[in-house]
Amino acid sequence: MKYLIIIAFALVVSPLAVFGQSTGAEAAIKKVMEDQTAAWNRGDIDGFMGGYWKSEKLTFVSGTNVTRGWQATHDRYKKSYDTREKMGELAFSDLEFTMLGPDSAVVLGTWSVKRKADNPHGKFTLTFKKFKDGWKIILDHTS
Amino acid sequence: MKYLIIIAFALVVSPLAVFGQSTGAEAAIKKVMEDQTAAWNRGDIDGFMGGYWKSEKLTFVSGTNVTRGWQATHDRYKKSYDTREKMGELAFSDLEFTMLGPDSAVVLGTWSVKRKADNPHGKFTLTFKKFKDGWKIILDHTS
Repeated sequence: MKYLIIIAFALVVSPLAVFGQSTGAEAAIKKVMEDQTAAWNRGDIDGFMGGYWKSEKLTFVSGTNVTRGWQATHDRYKKSYDTREKMGELAFSDLEFTMLGPDSAVVLGTWSVKRKADNPHGKFTLTFKKFKDGWKIILDHTS
Repeated sequence: MKYLIIIAFALVVSPLAVFGQSTGAEAAIKKVMEDQTAAWNRGDIDGFMGGYWKSEKLTFVSGTNVTRGWQATHDRYKKSYDTREKMGELAFSDLEFTMLGPDSAVVLGTWSVKRKADNPHGKFTLTFKKFKDGWKIILDHTS
């Protein structure tokens, strides 16, 4: 009987725990993205890259171009945004979170870079996984 | 003691079951996508749309454009590909599966439409969820 109660308790509580995690997860992911824009807007690409999974398996899709691995993604950003002027002011907006489990989520949103000369912008879908050191982007599709 | 054995068994078997599901899941998702291209290539957009979540919450991102809901996504395809010639021959390739849990996955791949006049192509990331009636795309980002 004692174990039946334990099993019943586990069945009731664990879905609630997952649900609770979801809300906490959203806030945690939002924080990662806020840290990214804050880093970008002080000209710190290395800090910005802290939101990405530091793995050779990180995948970055921009239009029809696919970049493989954290280092190559980092180098691509460094090359494309090699002056503070080119980096401009980055903002993320219209964020929509879809939890896919207690440790995975996808975020759809809009990115926008305000610069003196222009204002490039577009959509992104970020697949996030929760690791021991927090939520990280494992797949970025930007268009 | 009996319940302890049940609990121990559940703890050992359930992660294995999730692992087993992953491989089965990949095959099941691949089948959904093969059914989609087969439908497309016989001029059947309704059949092609069978791979998408029949919900107002289905999200379809193409470049900077976001379409909301199954019906609007269906209508968009019907409008863009209103003749068999425009539909051409669809192929998916370079598929990369990332399981995000027992009932969610993301698939990165290349799409290509061979037509007499041209050969549009690009990348997609499809977020799949497993429902009672099988795996369905809940978020499609195409570029």
